[in-house]
Amino acid sequence: MKNEPWDGVTHETTGMKKPFAEVIKANIGDAHAMGQQPITFFRQVLALCSYPELLSDSTFPDDAKSRACRILNSCGGNSMGSYSPSQGIGSVRQDVARYVERRDGGVPCDPDNIYLTTGASDGIVTMLKLLVCGEGTMRTGVMISIPQYPLYSAALAELGAVQINYYLNEEKCWSLDITELQRALDEARLYCNPRALCIINPGNPTGQVQSRECIEDVIRFAAKERLFLMADEVYQDNVYAEGCQFHSFKKVLFEMGPEYSETVELASFHSTSKCYMGECGFRGGYMEIINMDDDVKAQLNKLLSVRLCPPVPGQALMDLVVNPPQPGEPSYERFIKERTATLSTLAEKAKLTEQVLNTVQGISCNPVQGAMYSFPSITIPEKAIKEATDIGQEPDMFYCMKMLEETGICLVPGSGFGQKEGTYHFRMTILPPTDKLKVLLNKVQEFHLKFNQQYS
Amino acid sequence: MKNEPWDGVTHETTGMKKPFAEVIKANIGDAHAMGQQPITFFRQVLALCSYPELLSDSTFPDDAKSRACRILNSCGGNSMGSYSPSQGIGSVRQDVARYVERRDGGVPCDPDNIYLTTGASDGIVTMLKLLVCGEGTMRTGVMISIPQYPLYSAALAELGAVQINYYLNEEKCWSLDITELQRALDEARLYCNPRALCIINPGNPTGQVQSRECIEDVIRFAAKERLFLMADEVYQDNVYAEGCQFHSFKKVLFEMGPEYSETVELASFHSTSKCYMGECGFRGGYMEIINMDDDVKAQLNKLLSVRLCPPVPGQALMDLVVNPPQPGEPSYERFIKERTATLSTLAEKAKLTEQVLNTVQGISCNPVQGAMYSFPSITIPEKAIKEATDIGQEPDMFYCMKMLEETGICLVPGSGFGQKEGTYHFRMTILPPTDKLKVLLNKVQEFHLKFNQQYS
Repeated sequence: MKNEPWDGVTHETTGMKKPFAEVIKANIGDAHAMGQQPITFFRQVLALCSYPELLSDSTFPDDAKSRACRILNSCGGNSMGSYSPSQGIGSVRQDVARYVERRDGGVPCDPDNIYLTTGASDGIVTMLKLLVCGEGTMRTGVMISIPQYPLYSAALAELGAVQINYYLNEEKCWSLDITELQRALDEARLYCNPRALCIINPGNPTGQVQSRECIEDVIRFAAKERLFLMADEVYQDNVYAEGCQFHSFKKVLFEMGPEYSETVELASFHSTSKCYMGECGFRGGYMEIINMDDDVKAQLNKLLSVRLCPPVPGQALMDLVVNPPQPGEPSYERFIKERTATLSTLAEKAKLTEQVLNTVQGISCNPVQGAMYSFPSITIPEKAIKEATDIGQEPDMFYCMKMLEETGICLVPGSGFGQKEGTYHFRMTILPPTDKLKVLLNKVQEFHLKFNQQYS
Repeated sequence: MKNEPWDGVTHETTGMKKPFAEVIKANIGDAHAMGQQPITFFRQVLALCSYPELLSDSTFPDDAKSRACRILNSCGGNSMGSYSPSQGIGSVRQDVARYVERRDGGVPCDPDNIYLTTGASDGIVTMLKLLVCGEGTMRTGVMISIPQYPLYSAALAELGAVQINYYLNEEKCWSLDITELQRALDEARLYCNPRALCIINPGNPTGQVQSRECIEDVIRFAAKERLFLMADEVYQDNVYAEGCQFHSFKKVLFEMGPEYSETVELASFHSTSKCYMGECGFRGGYMEIINMDDDVKAQLNKLLSVRLCPPVPGQALMDLVVNPPQPGEPSYERFIKERTATLSTLAEKAKLTEQVLNTVQGISCNPVQGAMYSFPSITIPEKAIKEATDIGQEPDMFYCMKMLEETGICLVPGSGFGQKEGTYHFRMTILPPTDKLKVLLNKVQEFHLKFNQQYS
C-alpha cells in the first residue's frame, strides 16, 4: 500500500505532517465507528418508539410496529421520555428472561432476577460496589484475570478493594487454570478477604472461548471457596473458532445440579454493545443475578434507585436483541441476513488477523476464538526496552506510540491490561473493514520488522 | 366528584376492593407519565438519528433533517450506536456552550468546561465522588439544604461523607438565609472538613426561586469559606411566579467581577428531564465546571472514562434542547407553541395548587414559584402522631399512607426530604393534567379534614 503523506495527517498541536494518510483506530471495540451497519429492524423500532406518529407510515413493517407498540405500552404515558422502574421496564425483563431460557436450553429464568443496566459496565460497577461495601478488619478482594479489561481494575481501585490477579495461560490459548486460581486465592487470603471471582468469556482482551469443562471447574472452585461469580458474557454471540461454543455460566451451573444451582451466587452481564449489534452508544444492558440473599438484593435495589433508571432507548434496544424477528414475521429474513453477514465477516477477520500476525517473526498470536480482539505477544529488543525505561514508558507503550507516529495505526499496549512480567503484547480489534484490516496488518508487519531492526 | 368503588382499584396482594377508582401519582417529577406530550421537533430528530433512511422522507421538516445530520456527522461512523468521547460529543458540547452564553447574556462559556452526563443525577454523583474522595483526618462534609432532594443524602451516605444540613426558611417562602448557612458550617467545622455547598434552584421539593441578591450572598459565602459550589439548575425554565426570574449561578458569579469569577469553583447541572421537555427516560444532561484545578480535572476525566460515555440518544436530545428551532426555520412556530403551552399550563397548575391547598384549614402552602412541586406544611393531630409512633412510622408517612389507602393519591411525606423537627409536610407534583389535578386537590382537602376530625 502506498502512502501519500502530502494529503495526510498533521500533528494536532505542531501541525507537522505525518508519514501516513489516515489514522486507523484498532484500539476500541466500537463497531459502528469502524463502519459496521446497525440492524435495520432495531433502528426501525427505535424510530417508531421515538416518534410514534410513524406508526401510521406504511413503509414500516408490521412486526417493527408491533414491537414498538409493546415497548411503548410498557412506558408511562406511552413515552420513552418517562422514567422506568429502577430495575428496568417489566416487559423487557420478561423478554430477557425468555431469551435466557431459550439460550440455556430451558433452564428457568425469573424476570425478578433481571436488572436492566446502562451498558454492562454499569452493572459490573454496581455489583462490585455491592460486594465491596461490606466492612471488616481486612479489605475486600476481588479476583480478576490478567490480562483483564481495565474497567475492573479501575472500579476496584475506586472502591478501595484489593485486586487479586490470576493469570490466564497464554501457552494454552489464554485458558483458565484452576491451579492458578487456587494459587492467587491462597496468597490473597493472607492480606484480604476475597469475595468475588470475575470471568470474561469470551475473553477481552484475549479472545479465548472457555470450554465447558473449564466453566465447571470454575463453578466448583467458586462453590468450594464461597466466592461470588461475576460472568462478563457480553461477547456471547462472538464465537468464531471451529469446535468452540459459548456456554453460559448460568446453564452450566444449573446442569451441575442443585448442590451448585441452589447455592452458588452468580451475576451474568450482557449488553447491546457487542455481538452482531455493536450498539455501544445506546448504553443498553442487563444482568441476571442468581442465589443472592434477599437482604443484599434489597440493598441492590436501593443502590439502583439513586440513578433513577437506565436509559429507556437502551432498554428498548436490549428488548429487541432478546426478542428479534421470528420466522414468519416480515422482518425475519432481512434480520437473519444482516446478523449472519456481520458475524461471518467478523469470523473471517478473526482468522485473517491470526494468520497474518503469525507470519511475522517476533509476533505470536493465539487463535481469536471469540470476542473482537487479538492479543499477540511481541518481541521488543533490549535496546528499545532501555530507551522506553529511560523516558519512563512501558516498553509496549513505547512500541505502540512509535507505531502510531510512523503508521497511523492505533493499538493498545498490553501493559494497559496487565501481562506476565517480561512479556509484551498489544490489543488490536478485528473491527476495521476487511480491506482496511489488510492494510493495517501489513503495516503492523512492516513496522514490527523495522522496529526490531532499528533497535537490534 | 363521585367515586365508584365497585369498578375501582383492588389491593395488589389481598385483592380487596379499594374505595377509589384509580391511583393518581403525584409523587414523582415524571412529566410524560402524567400525560405531558413530547416536543414534536425533538422526537422527529431522534427518529431521524435512529433510522437515517428517514432522511429521504419528505414528511419530515428540513430543520429536523439538518439537525439530525449535524448530530450524526459528529458520531463515529455516522451512527448513534458508536461510543462518544467520555466527556460527550464535541459538537453537542459546543452547542451547550453557546446556549449557556445566550442564557447568561454573553458571559463566555468554554466547551471544554462542558461535560455531558447520564441525566443530572450522574453529574451530581460524579462531582460528589470527586470532591469527597480526598483523604484526611476528618471526613469530607457537604452542605445540603433541608428539605433536600434525596439523591444528595443517598450519594453522601454511599460515599461516607458527612451531610451538613442547612435549613431553608419556610416562613420566607423557603428562602436561603446566609446566617443559617454560617451556623450550619461553623458547627460542622468541629467534626468534619466542609468542601462543598449544594443549592437547588428553582427548588426541589420546595418550589422556590432564589433572588439575585440571595445568589450573590451565597457566592460571597462560598468564596469566603472556600467551598465548591454545586448548583442544581435543572428547573431553569420552570419559573411561574410574577416577579421571579431564574438567575444562573454562573451569570451572577461573572457579574460579580474577577475577584469571584476567577476563583470560586462552580459546577452547574442541567438535564433533559425537567422544564418543558420532561424527557426523563433518555437520561440526558450536562454540567459546566468553572475554575476547577487542572489536576482535579484530569482525575474527573479519568473517573468519567470508566463508564465509557453517556447514552448518545440522551446527548442528541440535550443538543436539541440547547439548539432548538430558530425563527425562520420550518419547525419554529410549532416548537414555540408546544413549549409555551406546556409551560403556561404548568404555571396555571402551580397557582391552582397553591390556592386550593391554602383554602384547607391545617394546610399551609408557600407559592409554587418554580420547579414542579408544592411542599405544604400540614397539621397532624397528637393522636395520629402517637398512633404513627406506635407502629414505628414517621407521622407524615402515616398520613400519606392513609391518604393513599383511602383516596388513591400518592404523595411523598416530608420526612423523605428532611424538615424542621416537629413540622410535617408532603411533596406533591403539579404534573397531573388540570382536570385530574382538580380532582386530586379536592380529595386531598376532603382527606385532610376527615383525618384531622378522626384523630382530634
